[in-house]
Amino acid sequence: MAQTPTQTPAGSAADAKPKQAAGLAGVVALDSGISFIDGAKGELLYRGYEISDLAKNTDFEEVAYMLWNGDLPSQSELDGLQEQFRAERALPADVLDHLRHHTPENTNPMAALRTAVSMLAHYDDEADDMSREANVRKAIRLTAKMPTILAAFDRIRKGKEVIAPSGEGSAAADFLYMLNGEKPGPSAEAIMDAALVLHAEHGLNASTFACRVIGATLSDMYSAITGAIGALKGPLHGGANIEVMKTLIELDKSGETAQEFVDRKLANKEKIMGIGHRVYKTLDPRAVILRGMLEGLSDEKGERKWMEMSDTIRETVKNEKGLEANVDFYSASVYYLLGIETDLYTPIFAISRMTGWTAHLLEQWQDNRLIRPRAEYIGPTGKTIQPIAERG
Amino acid sequence: MAQTPTQTPAGSAADAKPKQAAGLAGVVALDSGISFIDGAKGELLYRGYEISDLAKNTDFEEVAYMLWNGDLPSQSELDGLQEQFRAERALPADVLDHLRHHTPENTNPMAALRTAVSMLAHYDDEADDMSREANVRKAIRLTAKMPTILAAFDRIRKGKEVIAPSGEGSAAADFLYMLNGEKPGPSAEAIMDAALVLHAEHGLNASTFACRVIGATLSDMYSAITGAIGALKGPLHGGANIEVMKTLIELDKSGETAQEFVDRKLANKEKIMGIGHRVYKTLDPRAVILRGMLEGLSDEKGERKWMEMSDTIRETVKNEKGLEANVDFYSASVYYLLGIETDLYTPIFAISRMTGWTAHLLEQWQDNRLIRPRAEYIGPTGKTIQPIAERG
Repeated sequence: MAQTPTQTPAGSAADAKPKQAAGLAGVVALDSGISFIDGAKGELLYRGYEISDLAKNTDFEEVAYMLWNGDLPSQSELDGLQEQFRAERALPADVLDHLRHHTPENTNPMAALRTAVSMLAHYDDEADDMSREANVRKAIRLTAKMPTILAAFDRIRKGKEVIAPSGEGSAAADFLYMLNGEKPGPSAEAIMDAALVLHAEHGLNASTFACRVIGATLSDMYSAITGAIGALKGPLHGGANIEVMKTLIELDKSGETAQEFVDRKLANKEKIMGIGHRVYKTLDPRAVILRGMLEGLSDEKGERKWMEMSDTIRETVKNEKGLEANVDFYSASVYYLLGIETDLYTPIFAISRMTGWTAHLLEQWQDNRLIRPRAEYIGPTGKTIQPIAERG
Repeated sequence: MAQTPTQTPAGSAADAKPKQAAGLAGVVALDSGISFIDGAKGELLYRGYEISDLAKNTDFEEVAYMLWNGDLPSQSELDGLQEQFRAERALPADVLDHLRHHTPENTNPMAALRTAVSMLAHYDDEADDMSREANVRKAIRLTAKMPTILAAFDRIRKGKEVIAPSGEGSAAADFLYMLNGEKPGPSAEAIMDAALVLHAEHGLNASTFACRVIGATLSDMYSAITGAIGALKGPLHGGANIEVMKTLIELDKSGETAQEFVDRKLANKEKIMGIGHRVYKTLDPRAVILRGMLEGLSDEKGERKWMEMSDTIRETVKNEKGLEANVDFYSASVYYLLGIETDLYTPIFAISRMTGWTAHLLEQWQDNRLIRPRAEYIGPTGKTIQPIAERG
């Protein structure tokens, strides 16, 4: 299955002249058939389908199937996957016990998710089975259990009773049900489902790349996913949507108009989160879709201020700096209007991205090769150890 | 503190012509002043000092200090660090409880370590404090607690009583004490200490790279280290020393001579673990030192067969394939003769490498930049969604 990087003969690519690009920007690390991003045109395809088409015409479960298997499912394939998902939503009793007793209420939700996902491996007899079949089953299991972990964590920290998965319906609906204790309306379910579709996959972003680097040692899926959750936690990656909402709340409390606020931020050279992207040089297509969803939701909730503030910020930064909004920029307000705690935004991103991460692992393991760049050494050489009494 | 990759202006390095090298072999991902490897000469320096000099003349605690701070400590600096290490060895009660009740005895030891380390964050008020001072304290905390976690895990799975850290002596001695229930002799302690020095750091290996990719999102140290442990678990990385020992045990039971065994393996084009390295094209300098340690230990234990088998395999593969032994090749027999369970070899590697991982994180965060290469898309484009009833 694997190439054997430990047995690469001398004189191979490893001896090639080193190339450097800060942060590996623009460097192609591997081939992938999962998603295509045209940063200049603002285009995103999953498995060849445009993201706006997918957001409108498919649901999260179909997208999960497609990411793992290459194309959209037939009705019977989708029914089969739905059945597996529903059967896998419940958590092992010990993981629930862990969330109750070993996850203090002030635990960072991404840390809680990271630990709980790592712990799921202790209760999965297939954890170290590296066959594709077992890995697909683990991808289903992990995707199914993420919303359950997150909802249980949130209710436990609030002193509320944990709600078991209903064992029916979509991931989006069951997540909102487990989180809030009541079945969501069709509009809330549809918006959550679309948000899950939009965040499912995005090429070699930092968490997906970390996931593949870990997986490429032929370590197991739980190891790679635990690392990916850790990477997504970072404020320069998945953590950004939380920062966007904090900014909007800060603005709302400041008494300034959105225009005054953003002008002041720009004048002070402060960062504005959710704007600009390593890959997109124009509007992130996911931001366009989320902006549309936010319009409907704002009207439904009778609360347009978050959208209006966001629009002002976005337009001003675009005019002043030539930078456009990314996916985090509008997802923040969407989740806020759905009544979700700010610190759960990144974990919800993780629920969705689990499908992309696992798809990348399945692809990595089809033709594996260790991912191991080099560092350029910039330290001293030729030092000699002084006796400790003579060191100063 | 951080550059802002989300605000990179258009026309930057991200638009440069993509470059591709399978597995990023030979690609320079970043600058580092921590270790220098000359693969052609078989040279390894930590902070400018030769590894053989360090193995002979320093201990693990001095090396940890040096990796984090840039140079070897004075006596008072070392005393201060030792005191901190000793004070930090004990585990939070809930983590011990977790090891007792939520880590079934058949849990993969690296999975157990991964979960327990992730869980430590729940009990560290500084988990998300990204100041250098807090991160150095976390590096000390993590390094101090790793042996305690591993020893507790091993004793619990064997139904033995957990032994609390003595709160004195070196990490090497206290680890062997907690593992075996008796203080090690000076020779066992010295060998364990040297093994910890030898495995502490090795440039951008896959786990360290994963660690920096995660850390570069400005995620926290626990997230990055959890990912690194997951990467080290892989059989193409830290898992290799376990495979080496399995091979030696297989040979010992086979009734074949070492020569027959290795000839048969080579004729069948079977992999031989612990031989060859992505970077070293000659003998790994750490293998040389371990080979020396193995000689003394074999004589002390009156059991030279593992060393002799290893030598035959090594020489044959070198003659036939031009490939040399790496660090895993002799560490396997060393740990075996120290009476350590085979499946703990990789976790011991993790105990040591914790110092290198955390040193790389401290370096990464001094001048952070997101690490995000691109994938070359090889899938379809322009697909249109068919109604589900028409998909086949």
